[in-house]
Amino acid sequence: MTHNQLDAKAHAWSALFAEPMSELVQRYTASVFFDKRLWKADIQGSLAHAEMLAAQGIISAQDWADIQRGLQQIAQEIEAGTFEWKLALEDVHLNIEARLTQLVGDAGKRLHTGRSRNDQVATDVRLWLRDEIDGLIALLRELQGALVDVAERHVDVILPGFTHLQVAQPVSFAHHLLAYVEMFARDEERLRDVRRRTNRLPLGSAALAGTTYPLDRERVARTLGMVDERGEPQLCLNSLDAVSDRDFAIEFTAAASLIMVHISRLSEELILWMSQNFGFIRIADRFTTGSSIMPQKKNPDVPELARGKTGRVVGHLMGLITLMKGQPLAYNKDNQEDKEPLFDTVDTVRDTLRIFVDMIGGERDPATGAKSGGITVNRDAMEAAARRGFATATDLADYLVKKGVPFRDAHETVAAAVRAASERGRDLSELPLADLQAFHPAIGPDVYEVLSLRGSLQARNTVGGTAPAQVQRQIARHRARLGTGA
Amino acid sequence: MTHNQLDAKAHAWSALFAEPMSELVQRYTASVFFDKRLWKADIQGSLAHAEMLAAQGIISAQDWADIQRGLQQIAQEIEAGTFEWKLALEDVHLNIEARLTQLVGDAGKRLHTGRSRNDQVATDVRLWLRDEIDGLIALLRELQGALVDVAERHVDVILPGFTHLQVAQPVSFAHHLLAYVEMFARDEERLRDVRRRTNRLPLGSAALAGTTYPLDRERVARTLGMVDERGEPQLCLNSLDAVSDRDFAIEFTAAASLIMVHISRLSEELILWMSQNFGFIRIADRFTTGSSIMPQKKNPDVPELARGKTGRVVGHLMGLITLMKGQPLAYNKDNQEDKEPLFDTVDTVRDTLRIFVDMIGGERDPATGAKSGGITVNRDAMEAAARRGFATATDLADYLVKKGVPFRDAHETVAAAVRAASERGRDLSELPLADLQAFHPAIGPDVYEVLSLRGSLQARNTVGGTAPAQVQRQIARHRARLGTGA
Amino acid sequence: MTHNQLDAKAHAWSALFAEPMSELVQRYTASVFFDKRLWKADIQGSLAHAEMLAAQGIISAQDWADIQRGLQQIAQEIEAGTFEWKLALEDVHLNIEARLTQLVGDAGKRLHTGRSRNDQVATDVRLWLRDEIDGLIALLRELQGALVDVAERHVDVILPGFTHLQVAQPVSFAHHLLAYVEMFARDEERLRDVRRRTNRLPLGSAALAGTTYPLDRERVARTLGMVDERGEPQLCLNSLDAVSDRDFAIEFTAAASLIMVHISRLSEELILWMSQNFGFIRIADRFTTGSSIMPQKKNPDVPELARGKTGRVVGHLMGLITLMKGQPLAYNKDNQEDKEPLFDTVDTVRDTLRIFVDMIGGERDPATGAKSGGITVNRDAMEAAARRGFATATDLADYLVKKGVPFRDAHETVAAAVRAASERGRDLSELPLADLQAFHPAIGPDVYEVLSLRGSLQARNTVGGTAPAQVQRQIARHRARLGTGA
Amino acid sequence: MTHNQLDAKAHAWSALFAEPMSELVQRYTASVFFDKRLWKADIQGSLAHAEMLAAQGIISAQDWADIQRGLQQIAQEIEAGTFEWKLALEDVHLNIEARLTQLVGDAGKRLHTGRSRNDQVATDVRLWLRDEIDGLIALLRELQGALVDVAERHVDVILPGFTHLQVAQPVSFAHHLLAYVEMFARDEERLRDVRRRTNRLPLGSAALAGTTYPLDRERVARTLGMVDERGEPQLCLNSLDAVSDRDFAIEFTAAASLIMVHISRLSEELILWMSQNFGFIRIADRFTTGSSIMPQKKNPDVPELARGKTGRVVGHLMGLITLMKGQPLAYNKDNQEDKEPLFDTVDTVRDTLRIFVDMIGGERDPATGAKSGGITVNRDAMEAAARRGFATATDLADYLVKKGVPFRDAHETVAAAVRAASERGRDLSELPLADLQAFHPAIGPDVYEVLSLRGSLQARNTVGGTAPAQVQRQIARHRARLGTGA
Repeated sequence: MTHNQLDAKAHAWSALFAEPMSELVQRYTASVFFDKRLWKADIQGSLAHAEMLAAQGIISAQDWADIQRGLQQIAQEIEAGTFEWKLALEDVHLNIEARLTQLVGDAGKRLHTGRSRNDQVATDVRLWLRDEIDGLIALLRELQGALVDVAERHVDVILPGFTHLQVAQPVSFAHHLLAYVEMFARDEERLRDVRRRTNRLPLGSAALAGTTYPLDRERVARTLGMVDERGEPQLCLNSLDAVSDRDFAIEFTAAASLIMVHISRLSEELILWMSQNFGFIRIADRFTTGSSIMPQKKNPDVPELARGKTGRVVGHLMGLITLMKGQPLAYNKDNQEDKEPLFDTVDTVRDTLRIFVDMIGGERDPATGAKSGGITVNRDAMEAAARRGFATATDLADYLVKKGVPFRDAHETVAAAVRAASERGRDLSELPLADLQAFHPAIGPDVYEVLSLRGSLQARNTVGGTAPAQVQRQIARHRARLGTGA
Repeated sequence: MTHNQLDAKAHAWSALFAEPMSELVQRYTASVFFDKRLWKADIQGSLAHAEMLAAQGIISAQDWADIQRGLQQIAQEIEAGTFEWKLALEDVHLNIEARLTQLVGDAGKRLHTGRSRNDQVATDVRLWLRDEIDGLIALLRELQGALVDVAERHVDVILPGFTHLQVAQPVSFAHHLLAYVEMFARDEERLRDVRRRTNRLPLGSAALAGTTYPLDRERVARTLGMVDERGEPQLCLNSLDAVSDRDFAIEFTAAASLIMVHISRLSEELILWMSQNFGFIRIADRFTTGSSIMPQKKNPDVPELARGKTGRVVGHLMGLITLMKGQPLAYNKDNQEDKEPLFDTVDTVRDTLRIFVDMIGGERDPATGAKSGGITVNRDAMEAAARRGFATATDLADYLVKKGVPFRDAHETVAAAVRAASERGRDLSELPLADLQAFHPAIGPDVYEVLSLRGSLQARNTVGGTAPAQVQRQIARHRARLGTGA
Repeated sequence: MTHNQLDAKAHAWSALFAEPMSELVQRYTASVFFDKRLWKADIQGSLAHAEMLAAQGIISAQDWADIQRGLQQIAQEIEAGTFEWKLALEDVHLNIEARLTQLVGDAGKRLHTGRSRNDQVATDVRLWLRDEIDGLIALLRELQGALVDVAERHVDVILPGFTHLQVAQPVSFAHHLLAYVEMFARDEERLRDVRRRTNRLPLGSAALAGTTYPLDRERVARTLGMVDERGEPQLCLNSLDAVSDRDFAIEFTAAASLIMVHISRLSEELILWMSQNFGFIRIADRFTTGSSIMPQKKNPDVPELARGKTGRVVGHLMGLITLMKGQPLAYNKDNQEDKEPLFDTVDTVRDTLRIFVDMIGGERDPATGAKSGGITVNRDAMEAAARRGFATATDLADYLVKKGVPFRDAHETVAAAVRAASERGRDLSELPLADLQAFHPAIGPDVYEVLSLRGSLQARNTVGGTAPAQVQRQIARHRARLGTGA
Repeated sequence: MTHNQLDAKAHAWSALFAEPMSELVQRYTASVFFDKRLWKADIQGSLAHAEMLAAQGIISAQDWADIQRGLQQIAQEIEAGTFEWKLALEDVHLNIEARLTQLVGDAGKRLHTGRSRNDQVATDVRLWLRDEIDGLIALLRELQGALVDVAERHVDVILPGFTHLQVAQPVSFAHHLLAYVEMFARDEERLRDVRRRTNRLPLGSAALAGTTYPLDRERVARTLGMVDERGEPQLCLNSLDAVSDRDFAIEFTAAASLIMVHISRLSEELILWMSQNFGFIRIADRFTTGSSIMPQKKNPDVPELARGKTGRVVGHLMGLITLMKGQPLAYNKDNQEDKEPLFDTVDTVRDTLRIFVDMIGGERDPATGAKSGGITVNRDAMEAAARRGFATATDLADYLVKKGVPFRDAHETVAAAVRAASERGRDLSELPLADLQAFHPAIGPDVYEVLSLRGSLQARNTVGGTAPAQVQRQIARHRARLGTGA
């Protein structure tokens, strides 16, 4: 009984099975062609498990040495591209275990002692996702940094702030960009919360009920870095839950969907701002494409695709929830379908964030450290647009309130003034004082300061407002938080 | 100016562009690694377009001959696996066009006359999807046939019909299977409706506004088989709509979601029926897998995965709708994201249907034509289960109604009888006549026929009911509809 | 045993139940406060059922007369608002049946003979939805008519056609509107397909297995108008499927989601066009609102809300699919959750379409028959925008092709010309002939016709193109199809 | 100019508007009939705002007193049901403000100084949701407590643990219930995270750009309890983000979807366990209903509906994401559509949790404090089911491993033994020792302890395993965490 049964899996699962799977069924049920990307986590988890088995005396020191040697060789083979992945061996776990047994014999067969694929796969996915979350957090911080950099250069650039896509009030372009910094900062917070719930150890739960071997689960958790901020090991504390829980995948995908919702909002604005009717910004040519037929075209492909990819990630979220809904305990094969959406979500968000870092802030020249190629701002076009649409009408109403007019009355007075100015094709600031006074006698010559774009901007000097002084304070706060110098 | 500009695309899109795309951006925006599966439709569309260009005198006969020759060679190269797909050429369309120009020179450059990638890609996807729909319809019919075959062998097998997963009334197992035939027949109907709306020609719409060349769009439609049942060519009649419409993709994915909802319901039942607490059926070993830890396990992996894959397809539907929502006309790059969900939906549904055909009905031996390996029915377990839960209580109520008791009073009388029988641990049919008469004096000795499973079954002899005679009628109707002999 | 058991339901379901429901559970499980809107369909279905029961001799002529009389009185009570809906009676069906028995005694108790709530509710929902679909089809046709009307008045108005929200080619504003007519025409097609599958009769399937009474299901189908175009009665032919099928609800909601996707695209454009940076159109004040703080605001609330409501309908679609996924046969209580999303989908789509009919086309004065108050077009702003962005560059490329230059070379030549013109801040049509000829010697003085907006428009004279002649042809086709005069 | 302009809103929004809204448009755009449930939060926010305005000297002490008096009266009117909600006043905010001005004159008109509906509505929704989250957390803890109570009474009840719905290994019923405690504990964690991000103050952001009045936003935050655990006020720090952010609504609905996924899994199991083929448990009659036709039925309506309502909440999540995707900054009217899904999500989750608390754990008698009416366990049926399916096969494999056999070889040996036992219709524990030894010579008489259900259970004595000692430890941990005595 020293042969490698896993090698025989192509023929039949075990002595219990009368016939092998057909090739189509193998392909349908196998996961190796997508879950092989978990190989590093799988080996990491196996090493931690085997080290503990040896420490607890469940396997011998020799077995542990053999397993280490074998897994190291396998890691080298995979990295070198020489490892032969076999469909018949279903998944990354059996592929690696079968090869290990080829390499080190019985020690390989002992690796699975006290564990099951159910807790093994849950552990692998959590380890892998934890590391990916760390990468995404870093990218979110880079993107916030890029936005802060661009903001800092444009504090005094005035953009028409829109509500309902109608000109509302003038805002600083920096202030507008910082709105996205808030969004991505919340995304970062959320990912940290998800990470905390992801970084818990299922291993030791075996198939569903725990195991009969005297495992030291806390030791494994420590080896794998599954500890909280105080260094306490974090275990899944119910074996049935441990093998069937996919909350972390759904929660991660929900957080990723919000990242993409923010990206889609930013993309929508970049696309609008690049449209000839706005002409507010340009992005570097390397983020655009041309047309196969229209020679003049330069299309904002990257923001459009990013906006489109929101649907992809949201679709994965929907798929994962549908997957888990109504499943009885414990593990069911349905759960295997968690991986592709999770992998694609990570890839999509990572690539998107990476590209946005460069597209917004430019690429850093490795030699000089300087960045170039980020978005280019047409401040004249922005300011010209802010002059349309009576953007300072609210300021006139506030002006009247400060003269003692109740707010609702002031609002109504200005509405009448706007109507009259509009009929004359003029902005409020272009009306002579006498005309303004006809709307309300409290209006004096100081009104023109109030009606100017810059006057309006500076007047909004409450915390979180668009006044340049407030914007500078927020930039400083973000810089401190992100640990980036001015 | 005779060089091949497409070869230079890696450097810059056109003279208009100051810098090439970075590799990451190329990978992010390119589609060639998934849309190359459209190659056959792309060549088919190009041939129809070029043939028409020649017929209209827009290109010369020599150009047409060159294009034919070049595209044939490209088809051979792709099939042989020697075609070199280039990321820098973005998509299947530019890859093929660039190679064509390499092969046949200026004629290749003339192929794109009067079209744009916008109408080209819409045409390709529609052609490809139309053919895939035909394949899925054939599979749906095979699956209906397999269900009818199994049903026919089990007309007299009695299963407890459940509502709320509580025993309700006895039904024929054949009748139960035919419920799924109805579902898959509706799916077939829906796919035919989607096909009709998919099989319309966008080509000739160019980028968005039509073209300045005197195209004969109806000729192209006829060449491509885009005609209705009377042979009339079917054109997209508004160029802006033609290039931006993805209704057919959403509608197809919605129809596919319903197929998967039906598959998931059937899977749920197969899984229940295989569970030891039911033990109603077995499926062949080749559709099951074992456990890495529990040696006794034989798990219904295929139905579980199929149930899980419902989430995948539904996720794609959600993704596609999110993609299109709120897009202004006409084509936006977001649309490129329609392909992967569409491709994966087709693959998922096709593989699932294929496997279900075999898993339900068995595989046909090519030599004998006989099928074997479909589901195995444990009729005793089914019938034993039908004896639990007072499945014939409704029959007793109906019996009383026929004796003149108003239905609501009869219902109440039987509820009292069930309560009493339940307390004694007996079925209604096991109570002596005197006891039954205590509940209502109209009960006579003929009641026992009514209380038997088979009596109950045969009494439900209205159209669509579970009486064997009705079930046989439905089997005959399905056979006639599917064109399969008994 | 002549009391009305349904009156006692507040105390316990039947003799089988040891305790009544708590008020919270009643509220959680009851549906009467939303499903009472089915009352008309419920009475309609009951009348058809009772008429058949009498015709088949299952109930007496007197019973049938009593039931008719009682249901008529109930209809009057409901319409008058005097009917007392009781939570304890769960749903519309038991409320009406209980009242009927109050009014007419034992005849009321006989109404439920041969049916179950399972087939009753399925019948009611189908009847109700069928009529709502008819209403939505009428509204879709009104909206198409309104768009055609506005289009007809603006065939010669030139708009910049966008792809990627970048100026692409000039198009007729009428042509742009007709793109939406195509979309809503497809929506109409889809609703007709859904209607066909909705208009089938479940009644006669009873709880799940059919019934023991000699029902004439085809008679009921005919009475209820559940017939195909040839007048053949349409029955659900498998009782298990009949009571558990909710395909029609999902299919309808998918079709409704596509309607809302189209509405959201149109809304997005209306919002863009109304933004000060476009200024292409205005909608009537009664479809806008102001701001509580900014006196100058006039916000396009209706298109924004309509865009937002897309999410609502899509959410209902996802909810319904999630609901049905993985349910075993036959009826489960989960299905009760189909109603609220279905009702809200119908309400949302109906209100949205109604408002869009008016907002686009204006309201008809009942006295004069003339419409006023639809969208107002600023043709100068549209045409000015079309002059930006080198909208006729493709025309120059096509011009070169007609002079014998291969398309790809022409494309490249024009790209260089655009770059040069752009650097000089000029449109191509503003460059002197000599400058143009520097890019290609084949360019002659006739090029200026090609470079004009109107020349470009008229040149796109293929079927479905934007040339005014083509647009007129499509308007005529739509008018014929919609049955509306010019 | 002392009239109340808000009263005139039915006629026209302001002097700027030429016509009033039609009734249909009013109904379409108004939110008062669903957002009036925010009235308490609206008044709470207005009081905090006005108090600060007075403290900052922006309004007078008399104004502040008038506003207080007016708002108190309004609160009384609303609670008494005498407040007249007007459709023409659009929403809860304008309804309250208009009434306030009726009651207290100009002071009412001054309340809106320095704020806008955009920041007002964001504040109201956050305040309302924060309090609802607190209620849901309390219910989640009650449900955990109920599960722990039932678990504690059933530590030694053995259930077949399933994977793939196939018998896997025996588990304690208490252990099974504690899996759900883990899930609901994670839900509680997630709600706490969402609460933190919800409890931040938008007020002071005005329409989108901040305000010109010297507001003290931190004072308002403190008054409203929008502080972190150290009492630091929590502000939204970018005005554009503050008015357009709906992350908290999406994040909450995602967390609610996970709660419902857990509820749906528990419901699926309750339904299975109540099915006659399992017969593991009963739930109290008051959570079930009967059938209109089948007198014997007692259906688990509540778990089925709860499973169905998962779709509802997931649908709302998808709707909200679709709503926000691609919106440009800042506030757009689309956002108004956030409320109904949010409200319905809260209602659905709250009612479901409340009912599950009672259905699982029973209701507490107010007099005695004792609970009764929770689920009733049939321990014999559970244990009998655990004896099917070779539930202790893994134990035999582990037994062999402890005798020195490598795990994979032991697994294969047991598979052969299971096959042989199965063919003889026996459990492994029913085979004579000699027969077992034929499979492997290392098997000794101590094997029978290993093959018993209780032996198997007790052997899984690792942290999180099903051994009674471990289960007791977890119960103790949960009791400590929940603060409930034994």
